Formats: sequence, structure tokens, C-alpha cells
Amino acid sequence: MMRPGGPFKTPPSRRLGHETRVSPLAASKRSRIPAFEVMRITDEIARRRAAGHDVVSLCAGEPGARPAPGTLQPAGYTGPLGTAPLREAIAGHYRSWYDVEVDPTTVAVTTGSSGAFQLVFLAAFDPGDRVALASPGYPAYRNILTALGVHVVEIPTGPATRYRPTPELLDAAAAEHGPLAGLVIASPANPTGTMLGRGELSALVTWCTDHGARLISDEIYHGITFPAAGASDPRGVTARELDPNAVVINSFSKYWGMTGWRLGWAILPPELVGPLEALASNFALSPPAPAQELALTAFTDESYAERDAVVAGFARARALILDAAPRLQWGTAAPSDGAFYYYSELGPQLERFGDSVRYARALLERADVAVVPGVDFDPGAGPSRAGGGQAVRLSYAAGEAAVAEAVDRIVRFQG
Amino acid sequence: MMRPGGPFKTPPSRRLGHETRVSPLAASKRSRIPAFEVMRITDEIARRRAAGHDVVSLCAGEPGARPAPGTLQPAGYTGPLGTAPLREAIAGHYRSWYDVEVDPTTVAVTTGSSGAFQLVFLAAFDPGDRVALASPGYPAYRNILTALGVHVVEIPTGPATRYRPTPELLDAAAAEHGPLAGLVIASPANPTGTMLGRGELSALVTWCTDHGARLISDEIYHGITFPAAGASDPRGVTARELDPNAVVINSFSKYWGMTGWRLGWAILPPELVGPLEALASNFALSPPAPAQELALTAFTDESYAERDAVVAGFARARALILDAAPRLQWGTAAPSDGAFYYYSELGPQLERFGDSVRYARALLERADVAVVPGVDFDPGAGPSRAGGGQAVRLSYAAGEAAVAEAVDRIVRFQG
Repeated sequence: MMRPGGPFKTPPSRRLGHETRVSPLAASKRSRIPAFEVMRITDEIARRRAAGHDVVSLCAGEPGARPAPGTLQPAGYTGPLGTAPLREAIAGHYRSWYDVEVDPTTVAVTTGSSGAFQLVFLAAFDPGDRVALASPGYPAYRNILTALGVHVVEIPTGPATRYRPTPELLDAAAAEHGPLAGLVIASPANPTGTMLGRGELSALVTWCTDHGARLISDEIYHGITFPAAGASDPRGVTARELDPNAVVINSFSKYWGMTGWRLGWAILPPELVGPLEALASNFALSPPAPAQELALTAFTDESYAERDAVVAGFARARALILDAAPRLQWGTAAPSDGAFYYYSELGPQLERFGDSVRYARALLERADVAVVPGVDFDPGAGPSRAGGGQAVRLSYAAGEAAVAEAVDRIVRFQG
Repeated sequence: MMRPGGPFKTPPSRRLGHETRVSPLAASKRSRIPAFEVMRITDEIARRRAAGHDVVSLCAGEPGARPAPGTLQPAGYTGPLGTAPLREAIAGHYRSWYDVEVDPTTVAVTTGSSGAFQLVFLAAFDPGDRVALASPGYPAYRNILTALGVHVVEIPTGPATRYRPTPELLDAAAAEHGPLAGLVIASPANPTGTMLGRGELSALVTWCTDHGARLISDEIYHGITFPAAGASDPRGVTARELDPNAVVINSFSKYWGMTGWRLGWAILPPELVGPLEALASNFALSPPAPAQELALTAFTDESYAERDAVVAGFARARALILDAAPRLQWGTAAPSDGAFYYYSELGPQLERFGDSVRYARALLERADVAVVPGVDFDPGAGPSRAGGGQAVRLSYAAGEAAVAEAVDRIVRFQG
């Protein structure tokens, strides 16, 4: 990355991300902390060594690294936004899947998508800002934002909009709560599996642009999709294509199955790159190094083929549960367009069990089937909606055999 | 961990950490977010399986995990505070090094000590709270706290107190700024290497207890110490021994050399366990799993012996630089009791170079020696102190040969 003034001191303009701003949106005030320069000098030393200099570094607080087991090399700190080869490989992934050009210096490698969410929320929003999210939705959005002092505006969704936020729902939210500083979307979404088509995503982009709201697009389930043959956008539509100022967040956890390695990334608009680097160099130092090395193998044809075979297995498990739905005697289910979730209201079962928490507890204790009650995903505010207290989420990532066994047990359990 | 009411819903008392409080200090208001229950159900499923149940889990959003390279198994999510065996092994480390009993359920495994600092700061402090730190000190304390809205109170230290905070300095800070909610200390400290003896640490514990301030003790450099033969507390004194309400933070990065793996831990007082679990389950999901597996081998006699041999190498590099100090023609140096840092004012060199930033830049560009200017560690406020603009930090973790070469180059560079 260009670093005017040398590696030792971030010029104030860069700290604030002002010199490269193309978006009308600014970084948060609270992200105006200095970078931890030691972590950035690492890059400068690597550059000088690459240019043939014999650099003696007494910089990093890094002892002789412990040799890792297996084939991995000793793993030291990397730069705070990840290694250059991995950032370039991620940019290449956008070319190959979406035909979109991404500048590798705008790619931030993070400790899972979780690491991206916390850093992006810090960089983008100040305490008191209002940020909208669809409900039901991934609970960590709401909980991280709340812990960081951001006011979460829930957009209640349901079957009427296929569980998707819409410009009309955002208008209503802004009218009720006041102007929105941001919108977090996910497609495919957790827990509903619902997806935003190109037109729907485009309408949300336009709304955000018109209202000065920053769009954050969680694309962690891209590629875990079940498109008809010849469908357009078979992997999902990336917000990066429709809005160069959107923040896109993704991860190696879902499509690539690297959950425990904790590695993800964000694609950033220019004004957030400096703030994110400063935040990451203090909050995380660097993302996990062995995971970064392993992830370099993620974008080969062989790797895509391997992961698509895993997705084909999810498709079979999905077909099985959709076929079995009538036997479950539950209520309305969300679309399950993508991801590996089946989110359904419990319908007639609620008369016996009262709510989804009691239902899930009884199912685990009496039939040894673990499902997640919807309360994590939907606080269920408002009298017009059922809320998560009346729904459960099943992950069919466990595979066909597990799903088949679970359905049989559920049917027996309900009698 | 005991979980009244089953795994599906955290009772409010636990969320707030009230039911187990023994300290007069409360968790922060902002830590009152719900846990992400999916990550905690993992524990309940493991418990039922251990009890012989054939549990079908459709809970976790976790695809078939990608086989890891080498000897490691596929790595899925773990519980948000780490695996039970590793938490027990860490408790065992406190028995073997310090003869202190630690309840494994109060051990939080984190993504490096960085992960511990951000979660502990969120759990312990609300925006506007005042937290004191010694300056010079590790910059991420200051920068993380600032980004989280906490008011940082710098305790200026220097040769007069061997760069240590003292009760008198804390009295002065509280008189000037108002009551302190917390104090962050480090021993051995970065960048000064200075250590707190048992009596000095005890005096700080008493001050914190008397003034209702929460003590957070960074012990990441414990074991990288150079005690005289027969010295008491050869590894360092853990605050846990003197104050059961202190938060202790440590890591596998320094003594064990696992920097790039990003694994650390915190020992928590009871009232912070629930809040930290809730925060971790949303902000991080789980610490890296392969690192947790590897870290299980850290506490064997063989591992301690291996790492002590590395520390012996640091001792030789330290002796070399202390012997060479007169040749460097710099100013006053900090103690270098432990860690692997030599922090020194530049003294007469400042007349030529102006400040440490210019000095370090010239040294890198003209002699290919990388050192860190003190500005990262010490903003140098106040007219009475030199500040980091007049000092540099050398890490001698690079070893004897690198240090010897660097000293020769520095002497030639200065002419």
C-alpha cells in the first residue's frame, strides 16, 4: 500500500482515510486511532528485502516461532490486513466468480467473518448511529452493534416479502426511528436461506445511496446455492458489482468448510481501508497465519470442484427435508434458497409446547435431536409477527443421513 | 459450565453475571447482550454425547469441515471460551508455575491476547469510564480502549520509578482526572522490560481494591525473565495470586512462540465469566481450533524445557546488547528486567536527528537496521518527560547474531 512519509508515522490524512475518499460516507470518529506501527513496518521490511536489501530487523516482538505440526512452517505475525498473496488471491476469486475487478489493497483478511464484522462496524459507525437489519437474521449483527453502542433498527420481515428487506420497509423504519446510517443484509441469509436477486439488491443499493446509508453485504453463504440449470448469478450477486462503496464480507468457513480456522475477509471502499488497518493492527495484530497459508489453495479449480461436490450433498439433504415437510406438521417455512438452513414456524406444535424454546428443549431431552429455537434470530418484537419464539432453525449441513434420522425422530417425538 | 434452565436460553441473572458475584465490581452495561446460543448448545450436545446419548445435531451452521494439512484433524468451531481440555491445561499451568488454584471455568481461551483485551475491555468498562495505564506502554491498550469510548488516563513513568506505576502516581492521576474504573499493568512490560516485584504488585492491588478500580494484569511475557539463581518468583508474580478479582491476560505468542497462531487466554473473576462468554459467542464465535489442539502440548516438561532453552538464547542476546550499550552512545535505557526489549532514549543522537522517528527512518534507509521509534509506546505528553519521540525500542528476540550485526551497523551509521 502506498504510504507517504515512510512506514513510521501515519500521516493524519491517511489515518482519517480522507485522501482517497470517493464515497460521500466517512469513516467513524472512533476509528481515528493510530495504527500500531510495528505491525505495519513488517510490510516495509518485506518490501526492502524483496528489493535485495539485507535488513536486520529488531522490530517485532516475536520470538523464534514454534515449528507447527505436520507440513506447516513456523507461523509468525503477518500484516494486519493479511498476506499480500492471499489478498491478491481473494481479488482473483471476484474475477473468476463474478467478473468483478477488486483492488487487492482494498481486501482485508480477518479472523473469520466475525473479525470483519467487529472491525467494519467500528470503522463505519459511531455510538448512537442507527443501523437497520432484517429480522429474523444472524444474531451477532445485532449483538455486536449493540455492544458497540450502535442503535439497531429491526426490519421485521416474513412471508410477504420472502423474508427480505425492501425499500418500502426501509422507508417505514426511517420514518419511525429516524435516518439510517447503515443497512446490513445477507444473501443467502441465516436463518431463512432467502436470497436477494439482482433487481432486489439493486433496489436496496439505490435506497442506501439516496439516503446516505452505508450498505454492508454479508455474502458468507455465496456458492452454497441451488440454482436451476442456466440460471444467472448462480453463486449469488455480490453487492460489490452494483455498488463500489458497499462493504462486502465473506469467509472461508462455509463454502470452504474452514470454520475452526477462523478466517474471513472484507472488501472495503477506499475511505475505510486506512481506518480498518489502524483498527486491525490494534485489535487483532494479524489474522491467523497458518489459516492464511492454507487458504491460498482455496481458489483452484480442484478446490472449487471439491467444494461444489459438498454443496451437491447439501442439495440432496435440502431436497430430503423439503420433501419431508408435510410429515413434520409444522407451520410456514422460509424459502431455503441457499445456505443450509430450514427455518420454519412450528404451527400446530405450538399448542402442545407453547414456544420454540420449550419445543427444542423437549426434542433434545426426549428424542436427542438438537435444533435451534428461533429466539436467537428474531426477538419477535411487535404484535403482528410470530417471532422466533414460534420458529426453529434446522441446519441440514449435517447431511442426508442425519436429516433423515432427525425427521423420523421428530415425527415419532410428536406422536 | 453450570447452565440453569438448559442450554437454550440464558437466564437474565447469568447474562448479567449477578448470580456468582463475589467482587464489588460489576460487569459493564454494554456487555448485557445475549449469548449466541447456537455456540453454547455445542457444549450441551458434547455433554449428552459424553453421557452416551446418540445425538443428531442439526444445530451448527457448519459444513463438513475441510481436512487440514499435515497431522491435524478437520477443525470445527469449539465453545466460545475454548475447549474444556485446554481450559483445564491452562489451570494446571497456574498450579505448576505459581502454585495457584484456578477454576478452569474461569479460563477464557481467546484469539491471542488481543482477543482477550478487546473482550475484557468491553466486559469491564463502559464508555466514559477512566482507565489508567503506564506510559510508555503497549499502544494497543490505549488504542483499543479509545476506540471503545473509554477515557485513557496516562500514568507518566520514567527512570525515577524504574518505569513502573506506583500508588503515588495513581493518586496523582485520580486527583487530576477523577476516579479510575480500572488499571492496566504489564510485568514484564513492553517496551521497557520492567518488572513489578511482589511488594510493588501488592501495593497496586491494594490501591485498586481501596479505590474500586478493576486491575487487569498483562502477563504475556511471564517466563521470559532473567532471574538470578535462587530468586523468588522466577517466572514473574501473577496478579491472580494476590487478587482473586484481578483479570489476568496471557498468550501462547511470546514464551511459547506461537505468534501467528493467534491464541491467548484470560483468567476472569466470576462476575465477568458470563459477560465474556456472551461477548465471545457474538464477537468471535470461537478461538482458532487447530491452535487450541496444538496448545495442549504446551504444558509438558519437554515443552517448558524447549522454551526455556529459547529464553536462554534471549538472555545471551540481552547480555550482548547491555554490554554494547556504551558503544551506542544513546541516553538512559529502561531496565530490561524481562521480555526481549531494550528501550532507550537516544540522548546525544537527538542533536543530529531531531527525533526518534527521523532517526529510525534514516537507520533503516541508510544501514538497513529496523528499530521501532518510541512514539508508538509513549505519546510523550507533558513538558517534564522526554516521550517516545526521543526513544527507540529494540527487540532482541531476533537473537545474538542479529543483535551483534545491528550494533555494528548502528555504530558505523552514527559515525
